[in-house]
Formats: sequence, C-alpha cells, structure tokens
Amino acid sequence: MEWITVDDLDNIAIGATLLGTGGGGDPFVGKLMALQALQKYGPVKVLQVEELDDEALVMPVGSIGAPSVSNEKIASEEEVFAPVEALKDFFDRPTQAIMPIEIGGGNSLLPIACAAKMGLPIVDADAMGRAFPESQMVTFFLKGYQPNVVAMADSQGNRIVYYPKDGEWSEKIARAITDVMGGNANMVDNIFPGKIVKECGIRNTLSLAKQIGETLTRLADVTSPVQNLLEMLQGYSLFEGKINHIERNVEGGFTRGRTTLSGINQNKGDQLEVFFQNELLLARKNGEVIAMTPDLICALDHETGRPITTETLRYGARIHMIALPCDPKWRTDRGIEVAGPKYFGYDISYTPVENLMGEKGNV
Amino acid sequence: MEWITVDDLDNIAIGATLLGTGGGGDPFVGKLMALQALQKYGPVKVLQVEELDDEALVMPVGSIGAPSVSNEKIASEEEVFAPVEALKDFFDRPTQAIMPIEIGGGNSLLPIACAAKMGLPIVDADAMGRAFPESQMVTFFLKGYQPNVVAMADSQGNRIVYYPKDGEWSEKIARAITDVMGGNANMVDNIFPGKIVKECGIRNTLSLAKQIGETLTRLADVTSPVQNLLEMLQGYSLFEGKINHIERNVEGGFTRGRTTLSGINQNKGDQLEVFFQNELLLARKNGEVIAMTPDLICALDHETGRPITTETLRYGARIHMIALPCDPKWRTDRGIEVAGPKYFGYDISYTPVENLMGEKGNV
Repeated sequence: MEWITVDDLDNIAIGATLLGTGGGGDPFVGKLMALQALQKYGPVKVLQVEELDDEALVMPVGSIGAPSVSNEKIASEEEVFAPVEALKDFFDRPTQAIMPIEIGGGNSLLPIACAAKMGLPIVDADAMGRAFPESQMVTFFLKGYQPNVVAMADSQGNRIVYYPKDGEWSEKIARAITDVMGGNANMVDNIFPGKIVKECGIRNTLSLAKQIGETLTRLADVTSPVQNLLEMLQGYSLFEGKINHIERNVEGGFTRGRTTLSGINQNKGDQLEVFFQNELLLARKNGEVIAMTPDLICALDHETGRPITTETLRYGARIHMIALPCDPKWRTDRGIEVAGPKYFGYDISYTPVENLMGEKGNV
Repeated sequence: MEWITVDDLDNIAIGATLLGTGGGGDPFVGKLMALQALQKYGPVKVLQVEELDDEALVMPVGSIGAPSVSNEKIASEEEVFAPVEALKDFFDRPTQAIMPIEIGGGNSLLPIACAAKMGLPIVDADAMGRAFPESQMVTFFLKGYQPNVVAMADSQGNRIVYYPKDGEWSEKIARAITDVMGGNANMVDNIFPGKIVKECGIRNTLSLAKQIGETLTRLADVTSPVQNLLEMLQGYSLFEGKINHIERNVEGGFTRGRTTLSGINQNKGDQLEVFFQNELLLARKNGEVIAMTPDLICALDHETGRPITTETLRYGARIHMIALPCDPKWRTDRGIEVAGPKYFGYDISYTPVENLMGEKGNV
C-alpha cells in the first residue's frame, strides 16, 4: 500500500473493528472523518518504517476515552488537529510523518484524517498491534521510552500540554483530564524520532487492517470468510453463541462491562462469559478461561462475519467469538506485566491462546 | 510596608490564617517556605498596585487542593517554582511582579517565597481579599477576564500547561489534575498585565494580613485583642462555644465538612453549626443562618485570640467564631453568583452579615 485513498477506508475500518474498539471509538465514525479529509485534501502517502529518517519525528495522533462517549460526540476536524497545533512550536526538529498509536478502533482512522490535513505521510505501523484501553500500553513503554510531552484537546476549546514523569503518570493525568472533559478527548503522545519507531513499532499494521477488511468482504469467498481470516491470522474460533446478557458502565474515562452468551451450533449447551474494559479482555467458557489479554478477543457477527465493536454488542445478537495471538512484543515478561490479565485485576497467569485452545479450537 | 523581611512573616501568617485556609494549606507551613527563601535570597520588595506598569505581567503563584493534604505534603522550593518555570518562554512581555492570588491561607506566603527566589517584587494586593475554595473565584473572573494559560506541577515531577476555555473550565481541569496528583498541586493562573490588576486587584491585603497579625499579638492590648480586631475590621462576634462535633472528608480535591459547637459565656444554651469546603462557608445559630459566604467566617482560639484553620478545628476546642464583611466586589450580583451561598449548594439568598447581626452582634 503506497497511498491511502477513499477506496481503502472501508476495508481499513473493518480491519480496525476486528483489532479493537479503541479510544478512537467506532472505526466507522473515524472513517467518516478520514473520508471527509481525503475528499478535501487528497490521498495520503504511506511510509514503511524503514523509510523513516532516524532523527525526524513521528507523531501519533488519536483520541482517548470511553467509546460510548466518542461514538455520540463526533470530533470536528479542528478538534482532532488541536493537540498537534498545540505542539507546533515545541520541537526543534521536523515532523516527518503521522502514525496511529493503535491500529484497533477509530484510532486507526483519525490519523489518516490528520495526515491528510497536514499534508504528511502516514507510517504503516502502530505501537500496539491491536487496541489497548490505557495509553501507556504501547511498545515504546515496553522498551522504557516515556512520553516527554503530551497534548490534549476537547470539543469545548480547552487545550492541555503536559510533561509527565513517565508513561504511567501520563495515563493517570490523561484519564483524569478525559473524565473532566466529558469522557472523551483528542491526544498526541509518544512522539519519538524515526529510529525509536524502527526499534519499537509494530510493522505493516495499516496494511494488515486493510487486508483483514478485504478478506472478510471478498465476494468469491463469501461462504467462508471467517475461516479464511483465521487461517490468515493463525487465529482460533472460541465460541458460537447468542448474547443473553450485556452490562456496560462509563466510569473513570472507560467503558467497562461484561457479556454472557449461550452456545449455538458446535457450542450448543455451552456458556461463554467475556469481560471488557473498552476492549474484550478475558473469555471464560463454562467457567474455564480460554483466551485473555494481551491476546486479542474479537466478536464477529455470526451471519455476515463482520467484526462488531464492544459498543454494539447487544442482547439477542448471534456472535462468532474468535481469538488472535498478540504480537510477540506483548508476550515478553514486561509485555505481560503491562497488559496481561493481572494488570486488569484478573488473578490468573497469562497463557497464550494457542496453549489454551490447542488444535481442537482451530476451525 | 516597603519590604517583606523574615520579621514580618509571623504576623502575615496570623493574618492569613484569619482570612482563610486556602489551597495553600496552613499559613504556618507556607511561612516555613517563605522563611527559608528570605534567608537564602534576602527580603522581598513590596509594590503598591499603582506602581505597576500597565503592560508588564503580574504572576499569581500558589497551590491548589485539599489543605488536609498540603499540610502533610510540604512542597519543595523547586515544586512551587515549577509552574513559573514551565511558562518562562510563553509570554512576549516581561513579568514585573509576583502576587498572591488569595490573601487567606498559605497562598499568601508561597508567593513571597517565589518572589524571593525570582528576585521580583510582590504586589500588595490579591484577587479575593480572603481565601475561596475554587480557582475561578477571583475578582478578575467577576470582570470577565478569563485565564488564558495555566501551569501546574506536583511533587512527582509532572508539569502541565493548559489553555482553558474560560475560568470555570480552568477550575474543572485544575481540580481533576489536583485530584490525580494526590490532592494538592502548585499552580500559576490568572496572569494579567498591570492595568488589569489595577482594575481588579483588592488592594493592600498583604499589609492588612500583617496588620491583623500585629493587632492580635500586641502585648499592650493583651486583654482585648479580639475586640480591637473587630473594631479595626468592622467585624462581628458570632459565637463563643466548644466544639462538640467535627467531620471532614477529602474528596474531589477539597476538604469538606461540618462542625457544631455548644455555647459558652454569652452563648450558654445556644448551638452553632458551621459548614466548610476548605473555607468556613455558612454559620447557623440555633438553626438560623447568621453569616454566609462571600462574607468571611473565622474561628479564633477562645483563650489566645489566635485564628485557627479549618484543618485544626478539633473536638473540645473552645472557639470564638467571628465574621467579617467581604470586599464590596463580592457583594455585586456577579460576585454573589460566583461565590455566594447558592453556588455552594445552600438554598438561601445572600444577606450581608451586618443585616443578619445588626448592632446586637457587634462586640
């Protein structure tokens, strides 16, 4: 992928929905913003990580907060751009490119809008390889790189620039500000030079999102798009079922909740319970954990195979729940400490989804 | 008063304790910081408001949060200075002087420390004429001047610069940040040029604080210091009593609570109930309101006549509760809207303490 055009946005949005709900909210809301920007400013050039200059800066832009809020309070172009604007005189070196901080959720699409507006290329990479709910859950942080400066903005016209002590403080401060800003805000953080992006970035994830979209919508394969997807991503079918319970709360700048499903087809008689904090974090089948963060748990519409965000899970929906192994960077001791089950309050040790599901789970 | 020297600090601290608890916490904690700075950097020149240049900036520095926290977590010199440092390249014009944002509480003393360190004079004025618990409760705000930029810092090393939409948003953001910073933070806001300080500042309040301290400690008048004070300030004796109940909670970046007193001497058989949010806000005698914000309610030690902060009110203490009329700027419709009883959730209309107490209450 050398350019992102309006024709790519649907596929990227489908892929981004599979890869997470994200602080950016619904990818199809983000898609509308990217579409408007591409129509106004033209297509966006895509840079591979290797093409980055070692010294020039890469700026990750996105939004933070509870998806329940961002889906209803759609940001204006000015609002998304405001944190970038707030930092324009801050650095002594040029910005070469924009980057998604996370490839899951609307935060894969907002940076495309921002790159179009700024006339900058976008990097085919991100710092999660999926979406995670907290801002320090990035591969930069795993390697010990802390955000030196963070900028935030809201729809009211408030602008904030802060210099956090470290990534964990950055998250605490960002979340408190997000909460007072009404549950959603726009943000630029983890601004690093190209050489650090080369060390930490998870490569080709914009291309991956597009490829996921293409796989799930390919007409010739309409009978087995999900199986094609699982083969492509070495993923696992977790459960086929119908949602019989869903609860969600917007609190502390997150959407938290739980859903339960009663099995259909191969899972008739089984129960699945899934916990979420913006992202689906832990799945228990008949009381036994079968997949957990940092591996990715995704909900697909059972009929169409299209991914569904945490926000749109609803009573009665038939769901095909799948799991994808996370990037190896998240399976290190540090990765598990930062985004594993214990961090989110589940008192279990991380076991990779392959070990939990083995061959039996693979479709 | 042309200079502030180490010899002035005790009197200023006594006066500041009378005039409010303030975000700066206990004035005697602030005094220690000012003392250290004056010993290190020498005395601080005092400027009258009329001496200010119309264009040069006046920088109010102080701290924000729950006094319960700031009294235990004493800020370092670097921490108090950090918000000023964060703004050093921000303005296109010089800073002529430092100013207390409020004359009540530790925030009358912290600016002295800051002025000493920076080698700048301090203005003999403030923007409240007392202390108020929220940061938009300043005379600038009453005249429609909003803080354009605010800087905050904490003991962890986090630094924040923000551009609030207006004074109310500034307070919301500052309070959320204060809360996440552990309940207390240092701050610079309401930075305006001299001509706006001339329009809005409440004059001679550092001198007033010192004069209150002198009045209450003058040995020749040891038999009637409180009466001398009430005559000097046209204040009212509200109640003499013993604290039989005190409750306080640190929540949302404030210390909130309530105390009740059973009467002694002239008030034998009477009950007094006082509500506070950092500051004493409303007093009810036998169920009837006798003084309320924005007028000042102050607690004095019954034996020594020394003022007592909200933080040091304790079960069994004998208290002489007095009230002082607030500056006329707070008795306008806008002043009452911003800092009157309704703003704090008490469903009563403001009545000046003179009308409530009349001649009978005057000692």
